[in-house]
Amino acid sequence: MPVFLDTTQPDFDAAFTRLLGAKREDSPDVDDAVAAIIADVRARGDAAVLDLTAKFDRLTLTAETMAVSAAEMEAEIAKVPDADRAALELAAERIRAYHARQLPQDAEWTDDTGATLGWRWTPVGAAGLYVPGGLASYPSSVLMNAIPAKVAGVPRLCITVPTPDGVVNPLVLLAARIAGVDEIYRIGGAQAIAALAYGTDTIAPVDKITGPGNAYVAAAKRRVFGRVGIDMIAGPSEILVIADGDTDPDWIALDLMSQAEHDESAQSILITTDAAFGRAVAKAVETRLGTLQRRAIAGASWRDFGAVITVRDLDEAAALSNRVAPEHLELCVTDPQALSQKITHAGAIFLGQWTPEAIGDYVGGPNHVLPTARSARFSSGLSVLDFVKRTTLARMTPESLRAIGPAAERLAASESLEAHGLSVTARLRKLNG
Amino acid sequence: MPVFLDTTQPDFDAAFTRLLGAKREDSPDVDDAVAAIIADVRARGDAAVLDLTAKFDRLTLTAETMAVSAAEMEAEIAKVPDADRAALELAAERIRAYHARQLPQDAEWTDDTGATLGWRWTPVGAAGLYVPGGLASYPSSVLMNAIPAKVAGVPRLCITVPTPDGVVNPLVLLAARIAGVDEIYRIGGAQAIAALAYGTDTIAPVDKITGPGNAYVAAAKRRVFGRVGIDMIAGPSEILVIADGDTDPDWIALDLMSQAEHDESAQSILITTDAAFGRAVAKAVETRLGTLQRRAIAGASWRDFGAVITVRDLDEAAALSNRVAPEHLELCVTDPQALSQKITHAGAIFLGQWTPEAIGDYVGGPNHVLPTARSARFSSGLSVLDFVKRTTLARMTPESLRAIGPAAERLAASESLEAHGLSVTARLRKLNG
Repeated sequence: MPVFLDTTQPDFDAAFTRLLGAKREDSPDVDDAVAAIIADVRARGDAAVLDLTAKFDRLTLTAETMAVSAAEMEAEIAKVPDADRAALELAAERIRAYHARQLPQDAEWTDDTGATLGWRWTPVGAAGLYVPGGLASYPSSVLMNAIPAKVAGVPRLCITVPTPDGVVNPLVLLAARIAGVDEIYRIGGAQAIAALAYGTDTIAPVDKITGPGNAYVAAAKRRVFGRVGIDMIAGPSEILVIADGDTDPDWIALDLMSQAEHDESAQSILITTDAAFGRAVAKAVETRLGTLQRRAIAGASWRDFGAVITVRDLDEAAALSNRVAPEHLELCVTDPQALSQKITHAGAIFLGQWTPEAIGDYVGGPNHVLPTARSARFSSGLSVLDFVKRTTLARMTPESLRAIGPAAERLAASESLEAHGLSVTARLRKLNG
Repeated sequence: MPVFLDTTQPDFDAAFTRLLGAKREDSPDVDDAVAAIIADVRARGDAAVLDLTAKFDRLTLTAETMAVSAAEMEAEIAKVPDADRAALELAAERIRAYHARQLPQDAEWTDDTGATLGWRWTPVGAAGLYVPGGLASYPSSVLMNAIPAKVAGVPRLCITVPTPDGVVNPLVLLAARIAGVDEIYRIGGAQAIAALAYGTDTIAPVDKITGPGNAYVAAAKRRVFGRVGIDMIAGPSEILVIADGDTDPDWIALDLMSQAEHDESAQSILITTDAAFGRAVAKAVETRLGTLQRRAIAGASWRDFGAVITVRDLDEAAALSNRVAPEHLELCVTDPQALSQKITHAGAIFLGQWTPEAIGDYVGGPNHVLPTARSARFSSGLSVLDFVKRTTLARMTPESLRAIGPAAERLAASESLEAHGLSVTARLRKLNG
């Protein structure tokens, strides 16, 4: 059973704080193992990657067969049913259209001293996208990571995807093709992250690594951060639904389960102004858990971390939601637009009962790589901005240097940075000379 | 002596690659010590912070005296000479004006299915700024970190600054006042980062931590990343000057030294189309190194990591610069605007001979917290964007769900995520009656 809370109960705040603080994931400390793998790949390059792939994925590769060949790509892609292909293409088109609007603008202006100031955005030179293997090898995630990179103008985009026992997912390859991925390597784990960050004879190093992965991948990304850019360290994900009771309880139950079925450590929370509706949703969940294919996973998530919270009003609902800072937030209320104005921390908001979270996972347009585990307090979903960087520009004229140079001299002196000051003084002397 | 290279020499590429790969900083492995400090602060809160401050900063504080009091603030600020205050205020005004232009725009639009899509930006709730202690306690860095946060609208901004032996820097306090900082704690090291990330009884936790620090601070930031957002892991910094020989060699020498004087591991590189000019600059550097206050530091940096590279033309200069991806890039050439168009990776560009890098450190307007150690390949200087996050928005209509829902059902099925598909199916069934 999930926890049932009511903001009118005297111990509500303590109970809610417990819910927020629940440790949902046991992150095994794999850092030493990962450090050793990275050192091995740095030292032995391809040979280390091949050995580790044989060990962890039970797959014997050579430097030549690490990359998926053009012929294999064609053969695998040909297996994809037309309807799946059409769905992927529709999704790609909508994701591309949404992300194209995120391209940031360059700027340049002249200030009142005559100085020209501004900035310019440029894409990273190469990006690597980690795609998990096995069951969690989602073609939709390939689109969500690769399309923003290509919209940003990244000239070289490669994927690493482990293929345990050699099993590849044709849909992943097709998604990579549709998104414009340039290279695909069938490797995974910390060794893939190390190869992307440091390069091997076969795999040229990249500048930025994105994409989800297990504890080894997360630890490796944390370690190579600084050598390359990374997106985020993904944690267990969550959905929060705020509902006023005007939606079919079964729809809300399915929305909650669509998060719960991902992972036993996922969290699904319903906040409602209507206690009876909360009970009806919980009942609908139990019914659905009787038949769902992933009922073991979804049931464990719901039992261990699910919650139904009754609130006095929607203001209270918004305030609680902001404390959760959920990855996904559904507003199934009469005026979702008004309620959304009160939300300060959330990865993605789905407004109104016709917008199930699953739409955002696939075809809505916004990215489905979103800040998890309360990190929407300080971070955003994946976007074009993750694949560009800004260079600031400044050009002084003699007049502007005369106007602001003396302040720079003064501050340099106060920080005991003499050469800083002299570099301005020498120029001012010429101007005033 | 710095290294002198010429792109016409047969072994140039190998020599340049060596220069790029030179290990400029011995990062001591302090990770275990930092892990212990963080665990201690999480377990014992204030008591741990106070013990560690006594140990590392030789300063006995209480929970009450950890924060700088209003009275002390006034007393310290009163010591600042008027000219320094005026210079700080001019700098703050210019930095604020520049960063105000970085505020990102919200967006909302309706697509061809009738769905409403968009995003909204909101500030992080609380940010913590780390300011190094002692000699490297720069008031300009306080402005550069704090002003973007306040421009972003961060409601709570606090600073930690260690004060070894109790010595505070009045200019740092004044800069904090001018920038609108809300709380100042006289603590430092990994214990300050842990307190900001996890909170103690005295210090409420923040959502984002920025600012430079030593190896302990860097390791702590890496460890708390994910719990809170961080800006970047700063490495040794560098300046690259491209000059065509039309500038006073002494000016360029001073620009090179203004980087070198920061740190023995800083790197100053001159690329010039005029070999004789390169020699003249090197000679001017030697002259300046005879008298500079920080000649020991600047001299070591120049001797160990300095370089003068002669190139055939400015295209070659731009290509080499892009391989360096310098933190600071000065273009002291006749047409700096044209040359800047060829630059793809740089933290900040200073155009023309009237724009010494030091202007950007203090009063230019752009941020001086910039990507170091080649990380301009994938990251940007500090900006307003570091203190905001984006929430994506999607609202389907019945018509838009009918249009794109079936593709979501198909993709959910292909990923074996049944509840995802059913959450769409249930709604489509109602629509289709």
